[in-house]
Amino acid sequence: MVEIPDSHPRKRSLLSRQKIVEGSHRGLLADSAMIAHGRGEAFDYMLGERTTDSARLAIRESASRLRAANNPVISVNGNTVLLAGKGALRLAAVIGCPIEVNLYYRTPERVAGLLSLLEDQRKAVAEEEAPIGFEGEWLGTVNAVTLLGGSPDFRIQGLEGPRSHCTEKGIGVAETILVPLEDGDRCEALVNLDKEVIVIDLNPLSRSSKMATVTIVDEVSRAFDGILAALLDPDEMGYDEWDNDFVLKEALREMSSLVSDSSTPTL
Amino acid sequence: MVEIPDSHPRKRSLLSRQKIVEGSHRGLLADSAMIAHGRGEAFDYMLGERTTDSARLAIRESASRLRAANNPVISVNGNTVLLAGKGALRLAAVIGCPIEVNLYYRTPERVAGLLSLLEDQRKAVAEEEAPIGFEGEWLGTVNAVTLLGGSPDFRIQGLEGPRSHCTEKGIGVAETILVPLEDGDRCEALVNLDKEVIVIDLNPLSRSSKMATVTIVDEVSRAFDGILAALLDPDEMGYDEWDNDFVLKEALREMSSLVSDSSTPTL
Repeated sequence: MVEIPDSHPRKRSLLSRQKIVEGSHRGLLADSAMIAHGRGEAFDYMLGERTTDSARLAIRESASRLRAANNPVISVNGNTVLLAGKGALRLAAVIGCPIEVNLYYRTPERVAGLLSLLEDQRKAVAEEEAPIGFEGEWLGTVNAVTLLGGSPDFRIQGLEGPRSHCTEKGIGVAETILVPLEDGDRCEALVNLDKEVIVIDLNPLSRSSKMATVTIVDEVSRAFDGILAALLDPDEMGYDEWDNDFVLKEALREMSSLVSDSSTPTL
Repeated sequence: MVEIPDSHPRKRSLLSRQKIVEGSHRGLLADSAMIAHGRGEAFDYMLGERTTDSARLAIRESASRLRAANNPVISVNGNTVLLAGKGALRLAAVIGCPIEVNLYYRTPERVAGLLSLLEDQRKAVAEEEAPIGFEGEWLGTVNAVTLLGGSPDFRIQGLEGPRSHCTEKGIGVAETILVPLEDGDRCEALVNLDKEVIVIDLNPLSRSSKMATVTIVDEVSRAFDGILAALLDPDEMGYDEWDNDFVLKEALREMSSLVSDSSTPTL
């Protein structure tokens, strides 16, 4: 692995890229995962690689909905586990919900590999100090997070084949799903089942972004950090009405103003 | 391979993606190649997946410079050969210049694999009808294109290690280099050697884009098609003065106006 100096203006992005390349070598990712990551890099670059004001509104709304939800679940794919598995575990611990590994290109080997990586990440998260604002016993709470996906026993209606498989205890019964980096077809199927779908997607023009109940246009690990902070801050309430089109338009506006400015560090 | 219906609005982009995935399976690409392709997809998406007016200016200028050049060469990497190797061969035949396989992450296996793929592509191109406007014997001209890169015997000054290797007959003596998808460091080194560097790069903010003599902000196979047509059209002359910053600013302006419009098909 190449050492990236701390002074590099895009260090965090380059470290994320290394995680994806290594995960691919370890067989944890589908073919298209690296290409999807590259697309994300370009969109994040155009956001200035920061959480924008409009993403912060969506983060706050999402935290509020996850706090209030019946049977929430966090659905993760390979890229999410590699880039932000620890963040998912912290969120699941604070919300008290399961994490389900759910892959569009499902193979038993990849699901097992990602569950095993989540178990490793859980050990590291359990040893951390509890996040500020968390009341309770951190180590036990983290260890109590249920990891699902190894034995799918349910189907997402409206989809065919392996991509429809899920678990009843997780996505099956969930009324609210936090699902970063989701495929458009599956997002649509989940919305059609009247589930509340919170998507994290760097492309504000994607079908998932357009179809979700709440779309956080942000990099997944930054979004998870933001949701965690909002969950643990009693002042961070949601909004009476949520206009998802507004945050998508704002994301596009911020991208186009940054692109016309062009003073960002070079890719 | 998945069949993509002709009606799909993004069929050409999806076919390009398949070529990159297959090339990666065949060991022709470095780790970062799929991620780079994904970044390109996102930038091209924001260009509307079409050759913009400002890219057309740069294509015309490039054709004019390649026509007038002493010892031009086309430098290709793995992504270029997979996405547009036939286009490179057509250009080399019309210009009468060599193609050099030159990789940032050079391994003898990848160079040999790409040269072998170019030989296959050459057979197909030689059997095509000559492009409109071409005068001469097409099959013999295509078969006469020299393919370099297998035995590097020269170095690009200002670079260290394997990425500095090249051939004397190709990049070594060339005064004009057409180099799609180039790394920023190498572009800088070539410019510092007082070579005329024509870059094809979808990211108008990249270091290569900013440093090149002429930057074509366009997808590589569309750019090659455009240069070929311009080379063969006697009315397509270059410009008395070339302002490369202008085309980069125009590309950014077109991206930001498309992004604020957002009526493009979804990714």
